Amino acid sequence: MSNLKGIAASSGIAIAKAYKLAVPDLSFKKESIKDATKEIERLTNALEVSKSELEKIKEHARASLGDEHAEIFSAHLLVLSDPELINPIKDKIESEQVNAEFALDETAQMFIQMFENMDNEYMRERAADIKDVTKRVMAHLLNVSFPNPALINEEVVVIAEDLTPSDTAQLNKQFVKGFTTNIGGRTSHSAIMARSLEIPAVVGTKEVTAKINDGDFVIVDGIDGEVIINPSDDVIASYKEKLQQFEQQKQEWAKLKDEPTVSADGTHVELVANIGTPEDVTGVLNNGGEGVGLYRTEFLYMGKKELPTEEEQFESYKAVLEQMGDKPVVVRTLDIGGDKELPYLELPEEMNPFLGYRAIRLCLERDDIFRTQLRALLRASVFGNLKIMFPMIATLDEFRQAKALLLEEKEKLVAEGVEVSDAIEIGIMVEIPSTAVIARQFAKEVDFFSIGTNDLIQYTLAADRMNERVSYLYQPYHPAILNLVHNVIEAAHAEGKWAGMCGEMAGDSIAIPILLGLGLDEFSMSATSILPARTQIKGLSKEELASYKDTLLNMNTADEVEAFIREKTNQ
Amino acid sequence: MSNLKGIAASSGIAIAKAYKLAVPDLSFKKESIKDATKEIERLTNALEVSKSELEKIKEHARASLGDEHAEIFSAHLLVLSDPELINPIKDKIESEQVNAEFALDETAQMFIQMFENMDNEYMRERAADIKDVTKRVMAHLLNVSFPNPALINEEVVVIAEDLTPSDTAQLNKQFVKGFTTNIGGRTSHSAIMARSLEIPAVVGTKEVTAKINDGDFVIVDGIDGEVIINPSDDVIASYKEKLQQFEQQKQEWAKLKDEPTVSADGTHVELVANIGTPEDVTGVLNNGGEGVGLYRTEFLYMGKKELPTEEEQFESYKAVLEQMGDKPVVVRTLDIGGDKELPYLELPEEMNPFLGYRAIRLCLERDDIFRTQLRALLRASVFGNLKIMFPMIATLDEFRQAKALLLEEKEKLVAEGVEVSDAIEIGIMVEIPSTAVIARQFAKEVDFFSIGTNDLIQYTLAADRMNERVSYLYQPYHPAILNLVHNVIEAAHAEGKWAGMCGEMAGDSIAIPILLGLGLDEFSMSATSILPARTQIKGLSKEELASYKDTLLNMNTADEVEAFIREKTNQ
Repeated sequence: MSNLKGIAASSGIAIAKAYKLAVPDLSFKKESIKDATKEIERLTNALEVSKSELEKIKEHARASLGDEHAEIFSAHLLVLSDPELINPIKDKIESEQVNAEFALDETAQMFIQMFENMDNEYMRERAADIKDVTKRVMAHLLNVSFPNPALINEEVVVIAEDLTPSDTAQLNKQFVKGFTTNIGGRTSHSAIMARSLEIPAVVGTKEVTAKINDGDFVIVDGIDGEVIINPSDDVIASYKEKLQQFEQQKQEWAKLKDEPTVSADGTHVELVANIGTPEDVTGVLNNGGEGVGLYRTEFLYMGKKELPTEEEQFESYKAVLEQMGDKPVVVRTLDIGGDKELPYLELPEEMNPFLGYRAIRLCLERDDIFRTQLRALLRASVFGNLKIMFPMIATLDEFRQAKALLLEEKEKLVAEGVEVSDAIEIGIMVEIPSTAVIARQFAKEVDFFSIGTNDLIQYTLAADRMNERVSYLYQPYHPAILNLVHNVIEAAHAEGKWAGMCGEMAGDSIAIPILLGLGLDEFSMSATSILPARTQIKGLSKEELASYKDTLLNMNTADEVEAFIREKTNQ
Repeated sequence: MSNLKGIAASSGIAIAKAYKLAVPDLSFKKESIKDATKEIERLTNALEVSKSELEKIKEHARASLGDEHAEIFSAHLLVLSDPELINPIKDKIESEQVNAEFALDETAQMFIQMFENMDNEYMRERAADIKDVTKRVMAHLLNVSFPNPALINEEVVVIAEDLTPSDTAQLNKQFVKGFTTNIGGRTSHSAIMARSLEIPAVVGTKEVTAKINDGDFVIVDGIDGEVIINPSDDVIASYKEKLQQFEQQKQEWAKLKDEPTVSADGTHVELVANIGTPEDVTGVLNNGGEGVGLYRTEFLYMGKKELPTEEEQFESYKAVLEQMGDKPVVVRTLDIGGDKELPYLELPEEMNPFLGYRAIRLCLERDDIFRTQLRALLRASVFGNLKIMFPMIATLDEFRQAKALLLEEKEKLVAEGVEVSDAIEIGIMVEIPSTAVIARQFAKEVDFFSIGTNDLIQYTLAADRMNERVSYLYQPYHPAILNLVHNVIEAAHAEGKWAGMCGEMAGDSIAIPILLGLGLDEFSMSATSILPARTQIKGLSKEELASYKDTLLNMNTADEVEAFIREKTNQ
């Protein structure tokens, strides 16, 4: 039995056999063969098996995550049927009398290099497709098993270096009881996905793939961020008890599902959810969300070959708004660039993508893309309670320009006879320090603020939150962050506007008392965090917490802040 | 005659013939040859000519910039004498009966690829050396002229895509009257170098290399950021007049060389200089600098094969301190990482180096490197008026740790019987938003602040200042920047400490009135900006400017701020 510490990325406890999601050893020897026909048959078989696997995976992705997510597998299937790739492999087997492994590798490498060297992001994506698919075919040729998370059909805990969006797209909640990875933090894609799928997860363990073998028995404790390998019966029993307690607690939480969120001394705040697709709305409602505080629209644009049409977008926005009824839905306009690339946009490579051409910066220049999204939103506005916010606003000029485009499109639609709501609030993400600093200037012109702490923290401390070497500087409780958040809330209230938060911090049990004391109006978090947060807030006195404000704002370090709050709130 | 607009990077006007610093067309054909002996002779000649050029360049660099800068050319010379590289080229000529160009290229490419693929920064540097040197040899084989800025022996204006540190190291002020480049901004290396060499420069013209041919007659107007190509006689005459006025103005400025910097209503501020090497001190004193506000110690570490010893560093620090007498010298400890890499440190590649592992973050982990620098500084402290500041401080913990290391080394030295000054002030760079926001907490523990606006602006607006696509967000007059600067100055004064600024903003004629009004105590800038700044400040009323404070801090945009200051100060 041994233990690994990691970051608790998604609550809950999973106890199951390990399933290692690692590419197997695909090394092979070049061999001379005699019977080319037989060798070509081996190749054809490997191709067929790969195709049928991919068909299943694609179906699974479509069913559980929608058409968009299934697209990537269509691309992979196309590669496997492409005579331009397949025929040269067969030719090579025949003319050079070599084994299929060698012919496949040589031919694929040639195409990969050719595509990779093209100065075209789309072609480079094709190279990645060929690479992916070739591995699968090679595994079948070599008769080694290739991991197919979509095809898992027994209860397992998935062990991986990291999970890509395409990996997580394949996970079947019925069988995947939890996962744990070497890298990543609470705000990495895989962590956010885990919470949205409600699968317990521990990330950033550094060595989980080295320490765990396929078939090991593993406990993933997503509550305390621990992974236990081959536990003794006693330990299993104690974790089963912990799991039971957790389930009980969840039942307790569930009782608050339809209650408003009110502090012990009677202040109401709004607990809303972050979502990525219309499919996520069910989770929001099941977890008692009072609205959507952040609808990330990027997923509409990702994993595709071209920009989504106005119609496609309209359908998605409408679906979310209708399902949410009169509950507010805050939609963030396209935040692409940075670490989120769109192959078909051919964005230039940047030395510091987090400080680069992304989000509103891109949308104001590519206003064709932006206007399409705005029109889709405006048309959907009559189906619910829509609020729109712009990401990465650094100057008041940018907000004014973005708002002007929105009003222009609204006027056009009205002129075309399309019905558009007149009650749409227009706000901004506060995720750039400059905007937090002059929030009082912004508050005169915006309808609301939503503080995006993931970015705000990394810019305020000048530390890339994805970079392990400086991740110790990702400090949500840094007094500078508290001062900026305070400044934003005060600025909003001075103008009679509301201030929310949609970063990870909003769902954090140390941050919640601080934010309640500072007067935050809306907390947007992973759907699964809503009920625990509501439970916590029911036990907190806003007045008491507000009385600590000056003390907290004048503290020296994040550690001091955390210790103070732990003491005051018995955590 | 045609004009190009660019960024005025270094004041003054240059009128001379264009010298294009561009790598010539080095394409060649593979040819079969009969006489291998003759072909090898051609190669040997090209190698010899290249060596003798490099010897001259190296000598020039040593004489004008010191041993450290000459190192890079020693490395290049070694490549040209390396039998492991040269013999295979000769073998190839003989065995394959091919021309020298082909043999050189094939062999060099092989080595370059080999070195580039090694997972070792030092080896990748070797690949760059081979690449550089091969170009020179190829040019001689092809009989095309290869630009050698060090060997320029007539008055010219240098035209280039960009100038690397090694290019600028070669420029001879006697002949290079000015330069202009396609890319770069006021804070790029080449711009800083131009001001330190006092050569007029216009950068960021986008198309200067496309529009200008070798031998064209060119005017570089570093005052207004204009480049005039093949001007008419009238235009030349008017620029000669402008140049004369500029020279006259310089003489006016020179009269203030030994005067203190006092505003019209009697407030004294300190005008000090940014330097990179002991050689820069002459320029500081000649331009009436009241001290050194930023001694960038990175140059001691750059362009070398290993870390500088304590002794080497001691000699440099001592040289600066002694030359400056009792004038203050603020030394910034090592700020490496980010865009400034040290090959021998093998730093990991980062996705966002500006938000990465650099400066104090690196020094606290690699305290061996840091302690050596601190010891060298402490030993030098008795030779002048030393102040030490730490770069990239984001948390109070970092400052406390850095200071503790300094005090530890001081104690050790004292125990060893080494004399150390007891009057060393210990401060920090304020270049990360978090530190500017909680400056009042820092002010209780530091002796002084020096605001580094280059970084502070890019982090506060989350925009990489080197990235052309978002460089419009590099806004020194953004009200958020003014609010942060104001916060830092107020915090310092509340604790009886002083606040300086060592970013480019401190020497900017729009910023100077703002900063004077906000109460900044020390302005550190390029040496050549000191006298113009002193002249400007003599004409400003601090009291009047201070009365605009609230107006400025509550403005909406950088443009509003600039227009207001222009109006109030007649600019």
